[in-house]
Amino acid sequence: MFPQHVIARKRDGHVLTREEIGAFVRGATDGTWEDYQLSAMLMAVFLRGMNAEETAHYAEAMMRSGVVADLSDIPGVKVDKHSTGGVGDKISIPLAPMVVACGVPVPMISGRGLGHSGGTLDKLESIPGFRTDLSLAAYHAQVAKLGCALIGQTKDLAPADKKLYALRDVTATVECIPLICGSILSKKLAEGIDALVLDVKFGRGAFMKTLAEARQLAEALVRVGQAGGKQVRALLTAMDQPLGRTVGNALEVAESVACLRGEGPADVMEITYALGSHMLILGGVARDETEARRQLERVVASGAALARLREIVAAQGGDVRVIDDPARLARAQFQVPLPAPRSGVVSDVDAMGVALAALRLGAGRAKAADRIDPAVGVSHLVKIGERVAAGQALAVIHANDEAALAEARTMLGRAIAVGDEAPAKQPLVAETIL
Amino acid sequence: MFPQHVIARKRDGHVLTREEIGAFVRGATDGTWEDYQLSAMLMAVFLRGMNAEETAHYAEAMMRSGVVADLSDIPGVKVDKHSTGGVGDKISIPLAPMVVACGVPVPMISGRGLGHSGGTLDKLESIPGFRTDLSLAAYHAQVAKLGCALIGQTKDLAPADKKLYALRDVTATVECIPLICGSILSKKLAEGIDALVLDVKFGRGAFMKTLAEARQLAEALVRVGQAGGKQVRALLTAMDQPLGRTVGNALEVAESVACLRGEGPADVMEITYALGSHMLILGGVARDETEARRQLERVVASGAALARLREIVAAQGGDVRVIDDPARLARAQFQVPLPAPRSGVVSDVDAMGVALAALRLGAGRAKAADRIDPAVGVSHLVKIGERVAAGQALAVIHANDEAALAEARTMLGRAIAVGDEAPAKQPLVAETIL
Repeated sequence: MFPQHVIARKRDGHVLTREEIGAFVRGATDGTWEDYQLSAMLMAVFLRGMNAEETAHYAEAMMRSGVVADLSDIPGVKVDKHSTGGVGDKISIPLAPMVVACGVPVPMISGRGLGHSGGTLDKLESIPGFRTDLSLAAYHAQVAKLGCALIGQTKDLAPADKKLYALRDVTATVECIPLICGSILSKKLAEGIDALVLDVKFGRGAFMKTLAEARQLAEALVRVGQAGGKQVRALLTAMDQPLGRTVGNALEVAESVACLRGEGPADVMEITYALGSHMLILGGVARDETEARRQLERVVASGAALARLREIVAAQGGDVRVIDDPARLARAQFQVPLPAPRSGVVSDVDAMGVALAALRLGAGRAKAADRIDPAVGVSHLVKIGERVAAGQALAVIHANDEAALAEARTMLGRAIAVGDEAPAKQPLVAETIL
Repeated sequence: MFPQHVIARKRDGHVLTREEIGAFVRGATDGTWEDYQLSAMLMAVFLRGMNAEETAHYAEAMMRSGVVADLSDIPGVKVDKHSTGGVGDKISIPLAPMVVACGVPVPMISGRGLGHSGGTLDKLESIPGFRTDLSLAAYHAQVAKLGCALIGQTKDLAPADKKLYALRDVTATVECIPLICGSILSKKLAEGIDALVLDVKFGRGAFMKTLAEARQLAEALVRVGQAGGKQVRALLTAMDQPLGRTVGNALEVAESVACLRGEGPADVMEITYALGSHMLILGGVARDETEARRQLERVVASGAALARLREIVAAQGGDVRVIDDPARLARAQFQVPLPAPRSGVVSDVDAMGVALAALRLGAGRAKAADRIDPAVGVSHLVKIGERVAAGQALAVIHANDEAALAEARTMLGRAIAVGDEAPAKQPLVAETIL
């Protein structure tokens, strides 16, 4: 099968067979397709699309391009959560221990932050000693023992996706639903799960800017994941203002611990409970959302979920003392409040503006090779609709560099608006796709 | 200007600016665009298209990627002819001397054969000693002295086209009108001409299978060439059966010489006169086709055109004795007639079938690196509509290898059909596009 013949078939709008898609993905893995052939194919897919069946073959072929974890010897329905990325999105950290505490195993392989969106791995690594680079064997053993491991992608998982993702980035073929689906699902299918709950975000701080785009992606992910033999559901959640009151790695870990103490911000708790409820239902331990939510609230109130986080942190080499005393986390040199310019109602907190301010402080990566400063970021963020008095803090900026502090302060000042009236409240969870 | 931003603009269907197209073509020439970025762009152009203005910018940028010959010191309107390629298409060889003999300079840079279609350079090189690898300086000097040079493309001409053509071949982006236009015109614009007559062929033995496709290509070539400041016309000519009665390099040279003696086959003469007439009109030496044709017939009858071919052959190192005695050309070991299986009327001579038989004999190249045997091929081909008696030769096969002879004989037998009635006669020149 010559690469140019397979490319020509997609170029001409045909539906590719499983064998043709297999040849393409194998070509990306073993180098039998040249990079210029892979990129011509990616552009043909971008412009001609792939149907659900083709996308399922693509995701499966990418999954099989590397090692596929087998957790079938571990009892229970293994359920993971995946978010398409947002600002202040620390949900995985309170969520995983809660779901595990309710009896559902959560094998979770997370990513790092890039650009405006943060990564769970970076947040976890602000816990001193915490290791995310576990081998697949250690991952398997920890899921068997504790019901949960929070690790990063290994080299062996879906190598075709790594190759193709790098090419997509430099050939203008990123924003393509079948290619995004294949990329997300190949990695998730490779981690050995039975079910998956997706948090597909929409809005200014999300990859998908509109609800319609997010719905399209979510529907494709659910269909393709189900075609891959998994139970999959998706929530479409708003990402116009940051989630919670913190953006920055150690600051978000502290906020996550607060959630597990029952002291979390309302929006973080709402999304965590919503996603967790579907995980419990798919995990077979709750019949409906009401019952699931009651169980989740119970493991927070009893401290059982927090105890699970302690276990996981200890198992992965982290300093568990930070769980009980978050002041032990890295602290920035400067903590400077941003005063409200007037009294009124917070009319806007632009997630993208806040993210870029945090990026400027060193909380994220502009390029994949950048180093992250775990201590910096923004805390005590006001939320849209809250009343403030002139001079009251709209946020506290945590910085280790005066120049960055000054710039971030200006950026943050532009991102937060105080007006006379609160805008109409939008629901956080807009839709559920089963 | 990042490559991926330019790619994304074409991907999204925008009209590219001259600067954006310039960046792409420069990137292909100097390596600042990676091959995988060039091929993603080529696929985006394939699927999104380019308008006439974009295509003109593209052709111009490719022309300027290398040396551009300047023949402006040579008096007269310099006119070339370009054919999109066919079977038995030796037209350039009788045409150039005729047009020169009428007083119009013809600077002609030709290509080699690949696949089923032959190349003027290969045919000329069957004249012992004939050199086609002249430098641009020697080309310039010969056009100044004799009004004509028949040479091959040098490395310096349109190097971006060479790079992109090689990529198109392996990324399924060949059959794309703007890319074909850019490729043809960049090379023709670089040879220093003022005007161009195109022979755009359609039919089984042509690149474009239908008249409609050929018309689309011809219209684009004319529009884009005119946008490049040249006088351009195109003839759409039929290529269902081979042109003339020979296919094969030395055999076609002999037939070309016969044309210049006034003994050429009717179809070759008709196309040669048709193309030549437009060249004389563009060259400013004839007012209309009737007048032009009279001049062309006169230089054939007087021997002036043949004398010009002798001059050109001598100037390029060829053995002029073959012009007066074509028996001095390479002769194959076997000359075997193919007898008609029955009496009747020739109902089909499939150009592609004949071409593949000639290719099997060694008259062409399956791959660019293949060596050509100048002596082999097919002569004495019957034409559609001719009456034949059972056992009479439908063609003579010229071979240097018995196995190839046997296979070519079978192939040729399948390509030529004898029936009861002649099919309706189609005009050779279907349309003229000014």
